[in-house]
Amino acid sequence: MLRTNTCGELRIEHVGKSVTLCGWVQKTRKLGGATFIDLRDRYGITQLVFLGDDENSKTLGQEGFTREMVIKAHGTVVERESKNKNLPTGDIEIKLQNIEVLNKSITPPFTIEDETDGGDELRMKYRYLDLRRAIVRKNLELRHRLAIETRNYLDKLNFLEVETPVLIKSTPEGARDFVVPSRMNQNQFYALPQSPQTFKQLLMVSGFDRYYQIVKCFRDEDLRADRQPEFTQIDCEMSFVEQEDIIQTFEGLVKHLFKTVKNVDIAAMPRMTYADAMKYYGNDKPDTRFEMKFTELNDLVKNKGFKVFDDAEIVIGICAKGAAEYTRKQLDELTEWVKRPQIGATGLVYARHNSDGTLKSSVDKFYNEEELKKWSEALNSAPGDLILVLAGKEEKTRKAMSELRLEMGSRLGLRDKNKYSCLWVVDFPLLEWNEGDPNLLASLAGRWHAKHHPFTSPKPEDIALLKKSPGEVRANAYDMVINGVEVGGGSIRIHDKELQATMFDTLGFTKEEAQKQFGFLMHAFEFGAPPHGGIAFGFDRLCSLFGGAESIRDFIAFPKNNAGRDVMIDAPSEISEEQLKELSIETIIKTT
Amino acid sequence: MLRTNTCGELRIEHVGKSVTLCGWVQKTRKLGGATFIDLRDRYGITQLVFLGDDENSKTLGQEGFTREMVIKAHGTVVERESKNKNLPTGDIEIKLQNIEVLNKSITPPFTIEDETDGGDELRMKYRYLDLRRAIVRKNLELRHRLAIETRNYLDKLNFLEVETPVLIKSTPEGARDFVVPSRMNQNQFYALPQSPQTFKQLLMVSGFDRYYQIVKCFRDEDLRADRQPEFTQIDCEMSFVEQEDIIQTFEGLVKHLFKTVKNVDIAAMPRMTYADAMKYYGNDKPDTRFEMKFTELNDLVKNKGFKVFDDAEIVIGICAKGAAEYTRKQLDELTEWVKRPQIGATGLVYARHNSDGTLKSSVDKFYNEEELKKWSEALNSAPGDLILVLAGKEEKTRKAMSELRLEMGSRLGLRDKNKYSCLWVVDFPLLEWNEGDPNLLASLAGRWHAKHHPFTSPKPEDIALLKKSPGEVRANAYDMVINGVEVGGGSIRIHDKELQATMFDTLGFTKEEAQKQFGFLMHAFEFGAPPHGGIAFGFDRLCSLFGGAESIRDFIAFPKNNAGRDVMIDAPSEISEEQLKELSIETIIKTT
Repeated sequence: MLRTNTCGELRIEHVGKSVTLCGWVQKTRKLGGATFIDLRDRYGITQLVFLGDDENSKTLGQEGFTREMVIKAHGTVVERESKNKNLPTGDIEIKLQNIEVLNKSITPPFTIEDETDGGDELRMKYRYLDLRRAIVRKNLELRHRLAIETRNYLDKLNFLEVETPVLIKSTPEGARDFVVPSRMNQNQFYALPQSPQTFKQLLMVSGFDRYYQIVKCFRDEDLRADRQPEFTQIDCEMSFVEQEDIIQTFEGLVKHLFKTVKNVDIAAMPRMTYADAMKYYGNDKPDTRFEMKFTELNDLVKNKGFKVFDDAEIVIGICAKGAAEYTRKQLDELTEWVKRPQIGATGLVYARHNSDGTLKSSVDKFYNEEELKKWSEALNSAPGDLILVLAGKEEKTRKAMSELRLEMGSRLGLRDKNKYSCLWVVDFPLLEWNEGDPNLLASLAGRWHAKHHPFTSPKPEDIALLKKSPGEVRANAYDMVINGVEVGGGSIRIHDKELQATMFDTLGFTKEEAQKQFGFLMHAFEFGAPPHGGIAFGFDRLCSLFGGAESIRDFIAFPKNNAGRDVMIDAPSEISEEQLKELSIETIIKTT
Repeated sequence: MLRTNTCGELRIEHVGKSVTLCGWVQKTRKLGGATFIDLRDRYGITQLVFLGDDENSKTLGQEGFTREMVIKAHGTVVERESKNKNLPTGDIEIKLQNIEVLNKSITPPFTIEDETDGGDELRMKYRYLDLRRAIVRKNLELRHRLAIETRNYLDKLNFLEVETPVLIKSTPEGARDFVVPSRMNQNQFYALPQSPQTFKQLLMVSGFDRYYQIVKCFRDEDLRADRQPEFTQIDCEMSFVEQEDIIQTFEGLVKHLFKTVKNVDIAAMPRMTYADAMKYYGNDKPDTRFEMKFTELNDLVKNKGFKVFDDAEIVIGICAKGAAEYTRKQLDELTEWVKRPQIGATGLVYARHNSDGTLKSSVDKFYNEEELKKWSEALNSAPGDLILVLAGKEEKTRKAMSELRLEMGSRLGLRDKNKYSCLWVVDFPLLEWNEGDPNLLASLAGRWHAKHHPFTSPKPEDIALLKKSPGEVRANAYDMVINGVEVGGGSIRIHDKELQATMFDTLGFTKEEAQKQFGFLMHAFEFGAPPHGGIAFGFDRLCSLFGGAESIRDFIAFPKNNAGRDVMIDAPSEISEEQLKELSIETIIKTT
C-alpha cells in the first residue's frame, strides 16, 4: 500500500507514530510560518502541517498544493495545539517530513463540498467528481450497508441467492421491454427483464424453497421524474406459504434493516385493506405519519342549494389540525394550488373552526353554523382546526384530496423524514381496466390488466367472480408502504395450471398467445408446482427512504437523466454500420 | 407456513412430535400392509408411512401417490424399525394421520435422481425439473455460499459494493457488444457491459478507494463450448496500491473461500512470469498440479540426420513419469491424438526409459543410446519413464505440447479435482498483435491489441519501448490460475492522462476515436486520479472449480446453449412489428 493509514483513523493515541497518508487536497491555508493542508479520502480528513522551521519544510511549503491534487504525505503524528472537536481526527495533525504529488488536478467545475455550487446537470456530467462529495458518497455507503444486511437476514433464513438471466424473452404484458437484437439468431431479439418473475416461480417449481436476489431490472418507460430505465429490486420467493408467512418474514426483514442500519425500532406493522386506503386516504400508499383521514360529507351537504355539492358525485372533507389561523391569502393560494392541472380540482371549500368555537366557512351562504357544526362533528374538528372540502367526480376528487392531504401534511410539518410509519396494504383488486397507458403498447389498451401481474392468485372466495365481474375480484396481494412510499409488493401466486389459463383468458390472451408467451410456465406447473408466493422491494427507493431523501437519483452511483441518457459517458449513442450489419438490422430514420 | 418442519431436519429426539411436512413424492413402496413414501424437499428426504392398521390409513393408502406429486403430510414422528444410516433423517419416519395433495404431476421427461436418464438437451428444456436433482441444486447452493463468503471477506476489508449501470455505451475495443436500441433517442443504442471497467476506474477517481461488485457481464461471441453470452464476475478495484497489494488482498480472498467453503488450507501461492509459463508449459495458465515441464532439445537433437528435427524451429520434450510401459498400440493412438486438427502436431517421437535403465526410441535410426542418454539427462527421466517429443514451428509446437502435457497428466491421474494448485502468472506482455479474430469486428484486425484491456499500465521501465517495440512491453498485469484454469486477472491501471493517450495511439485509435469513446475517462483523469488497480474473477468458473466440475453450465441456474439460446423459455424470439416500429428499427432479413 502506498499509505500506512487512511485519513480517517489517526487519534491521540497514535502520537509519535511515523505515518504515510494518501488522498486529495481539500484545502490549504497559511498561518504564521506554517502551512496547513486538509487531506481527504473516503474515510475522513486529516490535517497536515509544514511548520516551516526547517529547510525541508520550507521546500515543501513552496510547492503549490491546489485543490483536488492527489498527494502522498509522510510525517509524524503530533498532538494539535488547537483541537478540532468536529473532526474525528481533530486531536492530531501530521508534521510532514516528505510529500509527493501523485497526480495533479485542474480546477473542478464545482466545489467538492457538501453544499456545492454545481447544478444538477453539471453534477451528472461530472458524476465522478460529484461522488467525491461526502454527502453523496454516504448515500452509496448506506446502500452497501442495506444490501449486506438484507443478505445477512435472508441467508440466515435459508434463502438462496440465485442469479436469473438478463437476456430473456419479450412479453407483451406489463410495461415496454428493452430488447437486444441477436446476431446469431437473425430477426430474433432477447428482452431485458422487467423482473425475474417467471424465473423465480420456476425456481419454486424446482423446489428451491426460498429464493432471493438483489437484481437489476429494466423498463422502457416514458420517464417520469425519479424513474430510472434500470432499477434494482430485492426479489424474493418462498414455497409452502400463505400470505401471512410472507408478511411476517418480510416485515422482519424491514425491521432488521431499520435496527441494524439506523438503530430504529419499528413496531408491528398495521394492515389496511386497499378499500380502506382508497376510502380514507384516496391512495393505495397512504402516508400514515399523520391522520387527516377523508370524511365523506354527501349526506350532510347535499340539497342545501349549493349547486357544486349537489352536482358532485362525492364531497370529501379533511380536518387540518391547528390550521384555522390560515389567512385569506393563504387559503386563496391553496385554492389556486388545488386548481393546478396536476391536481385538477375545480375549487376548494373551507371552514375555519375558530379558537372561540365558532365556525366560519367559504360557503356560509348555503350552510349556517348549525349545518357547519354537523361538518365539525363528522370531521371531529376542534377549535383551531381548518376543514377543507373538495367535491366532484369520485375518482378524480379522491385523487385531488389525497394530494391536498399530503400537501397540508407537509405544510403543517407532519411528515418528518426521521419518523417512520410502516403499513401493509392488503386485499388489492386482482384486475384493473386499462383505457390506454403511454407506457404500454397501443394494442394493450381497452382491456383488463393484472394490477400486480398475471401470476397473482385471486382470493379463493372470489374466484367465482372472475368471469362475471372481474373488477370485484380481490387478490392475495400486499404492498408494504412506508411514509407514503410503496417500498415493496407481492402476492401469493397461482400454482394451478387451469386457474392460470383462466387468468390469461381474462386478460385477453388467446390460447395461442398465452402458449407462445408463457407456455413453458404453464407446462412447468404440470409437474408438481408447490403453493408459493413472494415479494419484491424497490431497492433504490428503499435506500432513498433510509437516507431521508425524496429522490432516488443520489442513491444510484451512475443514474440516467429523464431522457434515459447517461450524460457522463454520453449514452446511448450511434453505433457503427458494421455493427448494425452484423445484427441484420437497420435504423429507419437515418441521421445524415 | 403449510409445514412445521422441512424434510431434512427431523431426528431421533423428535420422536413423539406431531409434525406437518410438505414436499415432492420421490418414490413409494409397499411392504406387508404398510405403504412407504419418500418425501423430498430442498433440505432432505423423510420417510412417511401408512401402517394400514386403521381405517384412516387404509383410506390414505388407497390414493395413488405418483412421483413428483406435491403433498402435505401430517403425522407423528416415530422411531424406525430398520434405520437408514445413509439418510440424516434415517432414524425416524412419520406415521401419517392425514395427507393432502397440493398439486399433481404428470410423468417427468426424465428421472429426478442424481444419475438421470435425461440427455443434455432434455435437461436444458426442462431445466426447472433438472434443478430438482440434488446434484444440480447443490451446485447452486455452493454458488450462493461462495457469493456470501466473497462479500463477507471484502466487506470486512472496507470494500464497498457499488452497482454500475447495465445500459452503457458501445466501445469498439474488445469483443462484440450486445446493443439495445433506444426508443427515446432515435438511431442510438445502449450497449451491455463486457465489464464495468471504466466505471470502476471512475469510482477510484471518485475516491471510493475500494470497490467490488458481483456483476453480470455480456459478450456477443461466437460461443465456444462452455462460454455463455452472459456471465458473472467478481469485479474489484483498489486505490493507492501496487501490484503486490492486489495480489496479497485477493490471494487472501481465494484462501478465505477455500477455507470457509471447502475447509481446504491453501499455502502461499507461487508466482511465475508469463515468459516462464510459456517456456515451461506452453501456456499462460499452466496446470501445476503436476510437473512434466517442457525441455527444449534443439541443441541435442539437431544435425544428427533426422530431417524433421533439423527443419523444426523448436524441438520440445516432456517426461511422463512411469509411462514407459505404454504399449505400441497406446503410443500409436497417442500419435493419432496429437495429429488431430485441434492439436495439429505432424507426429510424435517417443523414447522409453526402460526399467532396466536402457533407452529405446521411435527414432533409433538417428539417435543411438549415447544420444538418448543425453535426452534422458536433459529431461531428468528415470527408469520407467516415457519421453515424448514434438517438433515444428515454435508457437504451434508449444501449443500442441501443452495439450499433450495436459492429456498425459489426465491419463496418468495427475489432475485430481480434489487437489488445488494455485499460481499467480505475472509480467504479461502489454500488447498482442491481432491478425483477425472472428469475435472482433473486422475493422479491428491487423492491429496491436491490449492483452488485458487498454487501461492496463506498462511496467515503468518498459514505457520507452512502447513506440519502437510494442510487443516487448511488459504490463503490470497478473492472472490467478488454479489447476490450469484462469480464474481471475487484473492489472495496475494507467492513471496518467498522457500515458493513456499514448496507449490509445499505440492501439490505433485516432485522437477523435479515443475522444469519442473514452473522452470522459481521460477527462476524469485530469481531476486528480489516484494510482489504482484491480482484478476480476470469473465467478461461474470459480464455482465450477470449487464444485470439481469441468463445465460452468451446471453452476448457472438458467444457462444458454452454444447457439446463445435459452431453450426452456425459447429466447431469443421474434418481437412484434409494433415494438420494432416504436424502436425505429427494422430487420433486414424478413421471415415470411
